Amino acid sequence: MSDIDARLSALGLTLPPPFTLPPGLRLPFQFVQVRGTRVLISGLGPQGSDGQMAGPFGKVGAELSVEEGYASARLVALSMLSSLKRAIGDLDRVDGWHRVFGMVNSAPGFIQQPQVINGFSDLIIELFGDERGAHTRSAVGMAELPFNIPVEIEAELSIHH
Amino acid sequence: MSDIDARLSALGLTLPPPFTLPPGLRLPFQFVQVRGTRVLISGLGPQGSDGQMAGPFGKVGAELSVEEGYASARLVALSMLSSLKRAIGDLDRVDGWHRVFGMVNSAPGFIQQPQVINGFSDLIIELFGDERGAHTRSAVGMAELPFNIPVEIEAELSIHH
Amino acid sequence: MSDIDARLSALGLTLPPPFTLPPGLRLPFQFVQVRGTRVLISGLGPQGSDGQMAGPFGKVGAELSVEEGYASARLVALSMLSSLKRAIGDLDRVDGWHRVFGMVNSAPGFIQQPQVINGFSDLIIELFGDERGAHTRSAVGMAELPFNIPVEIEAELSIHH
Repeated sequence: MSDIDARLSALGLTLPPPFTLPPGLRLPFQFVQVRGTRVLISGLGPQGSDGQMAGPFGKVGAELSVEEGYASARLVALSMLSSLKRAIGDLDRVDGWHRVFGMVNSAPGFIQQPQVINGFSDLIIELFGDERGAHTRSAVGMAELPFNIPVEIEAELSIHH
Repeated sequence: MSDIDARLSALGLTLPPPFTLPPGLRLPFQFVQVRGTRVLISGLGPQGSDGQMAGPFGKVGAELSVEEGYASARLVALSMLSSLKRAIGDLDRVDGWHRVFGMVNSAPGFIQQPQVINGFSDLIIELFGDERGAHTRSAVGMAELPFNIPVEIEAELSIHH
Repeated sequence: MSDIDARLSALGLTLPPPFTLPPGLRLPFQFVQVRGTRVLISGLGPQGSDGQMAGPFGKVGAELSVEEGYASARLVALSMLSSLKRAIGDLDRVDGWHRVFGMVNSAPGFIQQPQVINGFSDLIIELFGDERGAHTRSAVGMAELPFNIPVEIEAELSIHH
């Protein structure tokens, strides 16, 4: 068992299965692109253990509290790690996280985007450690997100062979 | 004639001329930056055959339907290819598309951003093929976009010499 | 004194001190990440000479005019240069600016995002020159930004050793 898998287990966390596409939807792009040591990850949302997009749905600051937004951002991290693991085989190959672009579906007047995206950052650092898990970040308020998900996150990281 | 130019012709498509700046506007940045094999492209909008920003203008889900948004995203692809060709000389030099950040000017409650940005992805894949055209992507809802354009897309790709 | 420091002085500009975190807020990420010659910078906001987030706060097109938004984007540039200088020691090490992602907290109907982000681009080009300061850019309208700041900008650049 890899180190990161062991840490996930110790935290009682399980990575979700591949994303189940909603009926009728086409997503003609890669969730993860590996080019040498550089890995780009598409904007991904929260996913449940059934592979489907996971609720609660809606805007943080209206349908969701900050705490629910934080939990949703944590689910995005698990969804991303799941796609990443399928692409690179072993999460221990990750050398470092670089860019995290955190988008929060924001109700009018909601300005606590950093507290929401902390749900993603905290889990990445807990799993990969202070050094490998360190990343730059934006946490900003979107007008709308696909499927009415509360959080979508795009990222870049690097791996070794 | 290059392969990509031939495919554009076969599809009956023409790349627009250089962007005609609206009177009084300064845009002090590069539409395309080439650094070795890496190419960064600024957030670009839909452009018409006269070189000007192309309508319909407004928010998808209000002034524009999903289908009109899709058509606008396709115009963004043509605008981007036009700027790209002027920067690199020959579109056959493109080795791969990497990151596509698709921004949709979204009416309240409009959540079909992926269906809109598919207009960009579909054309890129049609022209460059499943392998070279493959890219990671986000498709998200903005509150407002410059000139009230319905779609703006930023991208990264790589080329050979 | 480095060239860039001398130009800042000649313009009568001073870089702000390290960011003073508002009470109770955790930001578990790096403002600047240096990896070899590549430098990624987190989404940063306007900062005052006291190190705190600088007003005016609110949406451009409502609480702020375009001119005030431009001034705020200029403060973001100074904040970014301040973080960058602490990370790389000497701003003369900058070889080139590459990607600028400019986010404007936009009131409904406000579509002059480019004119606002010009406050950032103009200062970068004034300090680094037309060649080293050249960059690709997006300037787009966000629904909300943290702390109700009017402008947030993310960037990528490269340095030499």
